[in-house]
Amino acid sequence: LSTYIAPLDEIRFVLNDLINISKLSEQIGSDVLADAELVDAILEQAARFAEQVLAPLNTVGDRHGAKWKDGQVSTAPGFIGAYNKFVESGWNNVVIAEKNGGQGLPNLLCAALQEMFVSANKSFCFCPELTAFAVKALENAASEELKQQYIPNLVSGKWTATMNLTEPQAGSDVGALRTRAMLQEDGSYRIFGQKIFISYGEHDLAENIIHLVLARIPGAPEGSRGVSLFVVPKILPESGIRNDVVCTGVEHKMGNHGSPTCTLVYGDSGEGATGWLVGELNMGLKAMFVMVNSARFNVGLEGVALGELAYQQAKSYAQERIQGRLATGGSDSVTIIRHPDVRRMLLVMRSQTEAMRALAYTIAATRDRTASCIDQIEKRSHQSFVDLMIPIFKGWASETAIDVTSTSIQVHGGIGYIEESGVSQPFRDVRVAAIYEGTTSIQAHDLVERKLVNNGGKAYQAWRYQIEICLTELAQRDDPTLLTIHHHLQSAVTAMDSAVTWAIENYAEYKLEVLAGSVPLLRLCGMVAGGWLLARSATVAKTQLLNAPYASGFLPRKVQSAHFYACHVLPEVNSLAMVAKGVGMATLALGEEAF
Amino acid sequence: LSTYIAPLDEIRFVLNDLINISKLSEQIGSDVLADAELVDAILEQAARFAEQVLAPLNTVGDRHGAKWKDGQVSTAPGFIGAYNKFVESGWNNVVIAEKNGGQGLPNLLCAALQEMFVSANKSFCFCPELTAFAVKALENAASEELKQQYIPNLVSGKWTATMNLTEPQAGSDVGALRTRAMLQEDGSYRIFGQKIFISYGEHDLAENIIHLVLARIPGAPEGSRGVSLFVVPKILPESGIRNDVVCTGVEHKMGNHGSPTCTLVYGDSGEGATGWLVGELNMGLKAMFVMVNSARFNVGLEGVALGELAYQQAKSYAQERIQGRLATGGSDSVTIIRHPDVRRMLLVMRSQTEAMRALAYTIAATRDRTASCIDQIEKRSHQSFVDLMIPIFKGWASETAIDVTSTSIQVHGGIGYIEESGVSQPFRDVRVAAIYEGTTSIQAHDLVERKLVNNGGKAYQAWRYQIEICLTELAQRDDPTLLTIHHHLQSAVTAMDSAVTWAIENYAEYKLEVLAGSVPLLRLCGMVAGGWLLARSATVAKTQLLNAPYASGFLPRKVQSAHFYACHVLPEVNSLAMVAKGVGMATLALGEEAF
Repeated sequence: LSTYIAPLDEIRFVLNDLINISKLSEQIGSDVLADAELVDAILEQAARFAEQVLAPLNTVGDRHGAKWKDGQVSTAPGFIGAYNKFVESGWNNVVIAEKNGGQGLPNLLCAALQEMFVSANKSFCFCPELTAFAVKALENAASEELKQQYIPNLVSGKWTATMNLTEPQAGSDVGALRTRAMLQEDGSYRIFGQKIFISYGEHDLAENIIHLVLARIPGAPEGSRGVSLFVVPKILPESGIRNDVVCTGVEHKMGNHGSPTCTLVYGDSGEGATGWLVGELNMGLKAMFVMVNSARFNVGLEGVALGELAYQQAKSYAQERIQGRLATGGSDSVTIIRHPDVRRMLLVMRSQTEAMRALAYTIAATRDRTASCIDQIEKRSHQSFVDLMIPIFKGWASETAIDVTSTSIQVHGGIGYIEESGVSQPFRDVRVAAIYEGTTSIQAHDLVERKLVNNGGKAYQAWRYQIEICLTELAQRDDPTLLTIHHHLQSAVTAMDSAVTWAIENYAEYKLEVLAGSVPLLRLCGMVAGGWLLARSATVAKTQLLNAPYASGFLPRKVQSAHFYACHVLPEVNSLAMVAKGVGMATLALGEEAF
Repeated sequence: LSTYIAPLDEIRFVLNDLINISKLSEQIGSDVLADAELVDAILEQAARFAEQVLAPLNTVGDRHGAKWKDGQVSTAPGFIGAYNKFVESGWNNVVIAEKNGGQGLPNLLCAALQEMFVSANKSFCFCPELTAFAVKALENAASEELKQQYIPNLVSGKWTATMNLTEPQAGSDVGALRTRAMLQEDGSYRIFGQKIFISYGEHDLAENIIHLVLARIPGAPEGSRGVSLFVVPKILPESGIRNDVVCTGVEHKMGNHGSPTCTLVYGDSGEGATGWLVGELNMGLKAMFVMVNSARFNVGLEGVALGELAYQQAKSYAQERIQGRLATGGSDSVTIIRHPDVRRMLLVMRSQTEAMRALAYTIAATRDRTASCIDQIEKRSHQSFVDLMIPIFKGWASETAIDVTSTSIQVHGGIGYIEESGVSQPFRDVRVAAIYEGTTSIQAHDLVERKLVNNGGKAYQAWRYQIEICLTELAQRDDPTLLTIHHHLQSAVTAMDSAVTWAIENYAEYKLEVLAGSVPLLRLCGMVAGGWLLARSATVAKTQLLNAPYASGFLPRKVQSAHFYACHVLPEVNSLAMVAKGVGMATLALGEEAF
């Protein structure tokens, strides 16, 4: 099994050459980004941590899993040590704002770090990630008292946190939850109910676990408008008393074995678990959903991370495995990378992973621009781009990563199906990314209704303007490869326009038909977004190559990725546009009783 | 977890209405097929066996696995009992020729039975399937003495058999194998070497295991022309002595846990395992490869079988799971099958599974015609169709089944990721189908070189003629749904023609470029083949509906499947044709050192 090596060349290219980090540092006034050496040092250190501390535990987590016994959960061997080192190095708080005691690194840099950590050990990363989300939720909505009580220990990593939304009857429809909260005389609440699928709901990495729990008070409105947010610590900070929240089991999942997915029962011993209201009553979903873009972005980033890991494994194997002879003749057996279809598979993996990464980092940089922007019109325009891209990125990257990781198994052949090879782990680990934080269906619904229809296509038009600039540049360059890319990108964009326009125009009257084609629509938007950024990468690389016409290695590889993606991925946009527009009637022709 | 229910309506429709079994029975002179009641009784009995005996053990096999200890392998609880019942009922020998003591049922009927058994319990089925292949290999090449010694007990199910091809350095390239065979004075051989990935190489279902082993004699030509086939029993039949073949372990695989995948070591104690030559020296691959079409067909059929199982699970769940409200409004939560994207996913699963089944049974029926045909020209034409379709079906169905089973997980949401739900098992079990019996790369190479180029496209033209008849019929019917199907099928066929013609014309000069696009080419051929047969199904169903215009249920469902497939799957043929023709240059632009 090959080891994960952080793709620093790739990451630096996207940061420096595609996004232009020094220009960004001026725009957002970031001292960190302005210091190229500092950025590089952070990337190098994170890379080393990912490679040396987290990656060796990835298969350990997969094989050992997190074990439940009598309400306690022990993580896989080595996880405690890695967590302590992670916290000591401060990686847990890079994303947390400085005012809360974190490092407040820009989103762009955090995305690069998160990608590397998740590639190295996805299961490990849930724990600090959820803790950082909880800090943001508390900061956003909690009282000063609650903030002071909880945030410092969460930021230091002494405690960790969880997000408690799902119940057996309330998955995608969070508003259907039934956990109850009863007000006490002292202003606290007693919580009763069962939550499922709670990542790191119980574990042995930290001394306390702070649960953020969605629940209803008696008489609250039905559905999502009657949901409130509560903070419910495992151990009450003041008294040190064990709260009445019990982990009754962990799930046996297809992947992410290293991450304990817990069932938590609140108030089972009778008096209820003690909790405190965060923010206003019945505004719990709003308090939670301030993190929705971050959470969905991170899930899309899992697609980048595991696509990268799978590509590295497949590439190493293809360069080493000797099997078969050249199709053009010869009697010697050769490495399988010399077979055209193996090379095609590697490029399918590489080009799509690069496309996903380019979009991820572009979104992250735009989030940084949004956060720092003073001009309100410009700020709204950045925010609109982010809002448009989040469902596209989350849906497309998580679905694409299934194919990319599956292709790694295919490159490996029989050995890829054997668990000891470690090849199936990214495939199993990434499969849930298209499900949690909103399934692809839900992303597609969000895309069509809120991001395209509700603003009359304005956010889309603004994005299209950016693509148009890229198309113009491609066409102006007298370069056959860039012209080929132009041809495919232009054709894909035309198809996308027709599908998006059709969806916007028909949504009011033919809502079900439009929704029936919404996932194909989302996927084609993702493909175009990736193709657009790879095309930009190719123009940048080609410009640099003008000064180094005989360069080998990195720059020609970037051009090849964009070229291959244009020839292999972008043509599918045309057919997906036909599907998006044309599949409604056949989908809805018969009622559910006909199935 | 929903239980498997054999889709007898579907199977009967394909047998009776699409293929016309009574006409086939005349063509091939089959008494069994001529007896409609008998056919039905066999299908019903097989369905009951699959549902009641095999299906309940499917998750048992997945969770318990086959356990190795000190060279012994014990199958999961219940497997021994199921095997005994399987053999008592004669299901193990339906496919074996009557002259060898089997029932010699037509391939068409065997395909239907095999589909049901594999849906119910894929891991179980390997054992009798491999045994039947071994009988065919022995019948084809072994001496009379060997036949008499081995075939009766294999046909009765008292013994089982294995196929030993793969070695660590010899996977796709079987000719690279190194296992040695040394001639003894008594005419037997001593075998030395290691074989891996041997399904049911050791187990507790039968009292003896007969290994068919590929090996080389000293001085044999290099590569595949120096490979001979040997029969090596676990226990020597005459003396009862345990032969020197040891199972040193079983693999831990992503799926198919119920099937022991063994490493077998021959001759480790020094003197070699005793074996006998089957057929001529150095003709071992030829002796093995008489089963290649059957074996590849069966793997494609695994795609049908697990697609069906996954569809049933997803459909049941979507009809029961209540979550979210109608997109068109209303305050009540509804079953998720009422959400347009869930319905789309179910139709993606159903229509592709029906398309795969239609092609599978069409191939099986043509194999029956080939076998019985006296007119040599007609026989060759049937054989050409089978030879053309085997790589297409194997490659396309196994790859499509990955998507179909993955879509079932998506329909289930979070619960689909939890192993207890049983939803991930078909996904994990079917993943290897695109690898064993020749990866998709190898199927695509075979398709282009041997099935398209080498016969100058004649087999393809013959198939195209059949599609043309279907297109004509669609166009002549004054039916909007059939005309929509016609539109998409015509467009897809035109694209396929251009890609196939391009591949044939350019193969001599641009072999690597054509091979770089060969997997997309294979996939689009499979999509068209499925679309062609669903279109035929729709015309048949529409004709029957003329006499029953208000019918609900089965017939409208068949029309919907074809309609949906035409709108959702066939458009992709256009983009895949572009990819097949256009991806070569970008794939091969940089050498392997650039990766």
